[in-house]
Amino acid sequence: MIKFRPVVFVTGILLSIMAIAMIIPAIVDAAAGHPDWRVFATSSALSLSIGISMVLATNATWTAFSLREAFVITNLAWLTIAIAGAIPLAFSELELSITDAFFESMSGITTTGSTIIVGLDETPPGILLWRGILQWLGGIGIIVMAVAILPILQVGGMQMFRVEAFEADKVLPKAAQIAAAIAIFYVFITIGAAIVLSLLGMSGFDAVVHAMTSIATGGFSTYDASIGHFQDPKIHWAISAFMVLGSIPFILYLRVIRGDFKSLIKDSQVKTFLIILGLSIALITYWLIADNGYSFATALRLSAFNVISLMTGSGFTTADYGMWGGFALALLFILMFVGGCAGSTTCGIKIFRLQVLYSTAEAQLNRLIQPNGIFFPTYNGNPIPENVSDSVMSFFFLFAVSFVLLAVGLGFSGLDFITAVSGAATAIANVGPGLGETIGPAGNFQPLPDSAKWLMSAGMLLGRLELFTIMVMILPRFWRG
Amino acid sequence: MIKFRPVVFVTGILLSIMAIAMIIPAIVDAAAGHPDWRVFATSSALSLSIGISMVLATNATWTAFSLREAFVITNLAWLTIAIAGAIPLAFSELELSITDAFFESMSGITTTGSTIIVGLDETPPGILLWRGILQWLGGIGIIVMAVAILPILQVGGMQMFRVEAFEADKVLPKAAQIAAAIAIFYVFITIGAAIVLSLLGMSGFDAVVHAMTSIATGGFSTYDASIGHFQDPKIHWAISAFMVLGSIPFILYLRVIRGDFKSLIKDSQVKTFLIILGLSIALITYWLIADNGYSFATALRLSAFNVISLMTGSGFTTADYGMWGGFALALLFILMFVGGCAGSTTCGIKIFRLQVLYSTAEAQLNRLIQPNGIFFPTYNGNPIPENVSDSVMSFFFLFAVSFVLLAVGLGFSGLDFITAVSGAATAIANVGPGLGETIGPAGNFQPLPDSAKWLMSAGMLLGRLELFTIMVMILPRFWRG
Ligand SMILES: [K+]
Ligand SMILES: [K+]
Repeated sequence: MIKFRPVVFVTGILLSIMAIAMIIPAIVDAAAGHPDWRVFATSSALSLSIGISMVLATNATWTAFSLREAFVITNLAWLTIAIAGAIPLAFSELELSITDAFFESMSGITTTGSTIIVGLDETPPGILLWRGILQWLGGIGIIVMAVAILPILQVGGMQMFRVEAFEADKVLPKAAQIAAAIAIFYVFITIGAAIVLSLLGMSGFDAVVHAMTSIATGGFSTYDASIGHFQDPKIHWAISAFMVLGSIPFILYLRVIRGDFKSLIKDSQVKTFLIILGLSIALITYWLIADNGYSFATALRLSAFNVISLMTGSGFTTADYGMWGGFALALLFILMFVGGCAGSTTCGIKIFRLQVLYSTAEAQLNRLIQPNGIFFPTYNGNPIPENVSDSVMSFFFLFAVSFVLLAVGLGFSGLDFITAVSGAATAIANVGPGLGETIGPAGNFQPLPDSAKWLMSAGMLLGRLELFTIMVMILPRFWRG
Repeated sequence: MIKFRPVVFVTGILLSIMAIAMIIPAIVDAAAGHPDWRVFATSSALSLSIGISMVLATNATWTAFSLREAFVITNLAWLTIAIAGAIPLAFSELELSITDAFFESMSGITTTGSTIIVGLDETPPGILLWRGILQWLGGIGIIVMAVAILPILQVGGMQMFRVEAFEADKVLPKAAQIAAAIAIFYVFITIGAAIVLSLLGMSGFDAVVHAMTSIATGGFSTYDASIGHFQDPKIHWAISAFMVLGSIPFILYLRVIRGDFKSLIKDSQVKTFLIILGLSIALITYWLIADNGYSFATALRLSAFNVISLMTGSGFTTADYGMWGGFALALLFILMFVGGCAGSTTCGIKIFRLQVLYSTAEAQLNRLIQPNGIFFPTYNGNPIPENVSDSVMSFFFLFAVSFVLLAVGLGFSGLDFITAVSGAATAIANVGPGLGETIGPAGNFQPLPDSAKWLMSAGMLLGRLELFTIMVMILPRFWRG
């Protein structure tokens, strides 16, 4: 039996945090003289009263919770936050439908960044800030989950990061301490990014929002043209850097702060991430010069920004890469699935899984030549435990199946081929923009039918929670035991 | 060290078989009074003299060969046959370039069916017959390999079919015997199909060619409009049935002939194949009625034919499914990867691998809820050995990687996004047509640049030999030992 007391308690606490966060856009809208401040204030009061009632009702008399309860809590928590985040959007002067408000909120907290708002340049500041806050909270939420929860749940090979974080690391021994340290670092790195962006000429407001959504590899902007709105190449390079910073395992930053530079430099996941990134940038730079006739400096800047943005799943754009030709499009489309490092704000398959898959396949091929030979796949120099490679390979298969089913479902809801396929990819990998005229880098998700928006919202959550966390709940065994 | 004596011997025998096969189109062209008969006769004489020299030079003094030699023989044999098959095409009155002749021949023997010949309706009969023979030989070649060679090489989980075929089966104990029995059955089922097609109104020539290319799930036709050339729905249904027959493990037919109907009916791979096929046909029939306004009978016929053709990787067409809308396109595109059963003439990932992947993922998810529980993935009611599921999962990963690299490579050769992506899929899954205006069901591969044709030829061979057979040769260990 699943006890619902801890589920209610944790969800109540998270609702209360959301309520407190809503006060910020309320203040900003009030200061700007915008009537939406009432919406945020009311939503905040509503969320806070529900949240506190939930906490009080459960009285905190429970202690530990079971694995099953952990899965239920995780899924319900993200769903509740998405719903809470949608409330001010639905009642604001934008007058979004329930579907649109939920889609935008889910796209926010999962750090996806697909938007249904047309005319961001004229959207009231409270809403723009709230979208940034949603992504920023989603970003820290997923880092903490990746460090503290997913390894224990053994989701898709994340158990590999359990030992590293909690046992081998003697200076920061406890989950709560590590989580708190990461959160503090997350705040500081965001402040740092905001300062850099404002020094480069952004308004304070734009600097804060873009700092939040680039560190979170979220991709919400305050302009329809995304980062293309800003002319200064230095801004493009700065945001490129912040997206890369958001894609590195945050636990490694804590080690660097303690003087342990080696663990960052020697980490094979980080190395592989940077190699794939560098190679892809070089290839597309070459292509933009050879095929599209750009100068080297322009080609490099366009290539670096958009490769980083799509591979890290940020989803900012500075150009309509839909016009870059088959090679660039095919490569960018594939990079959308890759993602960044585990323990960062990125989504997608993630680098360590590709490393595990590659090493396992290599061992497998070697076994064909020497059937009696013993070949272990390795990660970061250590043999990969059998259960980790099984878990990662199953993740890869289920990722492919989810993508395929979502694409077919989106086709059934009436989307054309390229919109359905790229929409499924961008949702499940939490990237943001898709391909094609409707949802491509120059497009918007507004015109999609409601059924497609709900399907994509579900896809975003599924991808963000690394598939397994949600999929276990489909098993009959989950509800039986 | 790899001894090249057995490699030369086997290749010599296969070249001689090709030479004998070339006599047939020579006779047909001579009877039709077409000058190309000289090309076939000369090609035959050339191939036969080289083939016999190779056999005589090696003197058949070798006995067994090593695993490494088996890989080299397999790869070289297919490559040699593709080259031999290209000779008459290159020197015929069609005056194909070397690239085009090799592409067409490789597309033939791998049973892919992508064609670079425009104007099939006016192409001399010898060439049309030769294309059919290439696919037909490719079909029986792959069945025999799947029964006799791939399980021993342990390629991509095929070891699962070793026990079943050679040990549990006491009536047909030996590889050569089974291979011969399958080949005889293959001849008879092709003759049966040809008789049915000629009774339905096809000319004798068309009936023979289409019987050969539908049992081989090859897809070469004698008309540019493919099966759409024939108006009679009965012909569409008959060819649908032959494509399905070509997608069942041929070893099961031998059992049925011996009165053992159960092994066909109870085979979980066959059941799953028919379920996926039936569901997909039903969904697309519904879609064609609801979205495109077809009558039920027309929708069912169009859906059944084209779903069967793409899922089995045959690649015949009766309609331009590119006009069927996003849902149909997305589903058909995904079915191209699925393929039929192992031990048949189909390519793609194949049904048994999807069953193994599904069962492994399910066991994995169950383990998340009960970490101390013991969950075995099963296939056909038996637990799947660890090495099989590892092998299948690595196959799936390498299939995805090959597809992705081929798509990016095709993009680099200048193809647009949809042509590059669908071209990679259709090559590696040996389907035939792609999507889009160039290589879609109404298109042709002629306009592609040479580099794309060579890349696709490589992709076809890689897919046909189940990836592993070729990929092991990339490992340093292969050449070291
Ligand atoms: K994003
Ligand atoms: K085919």
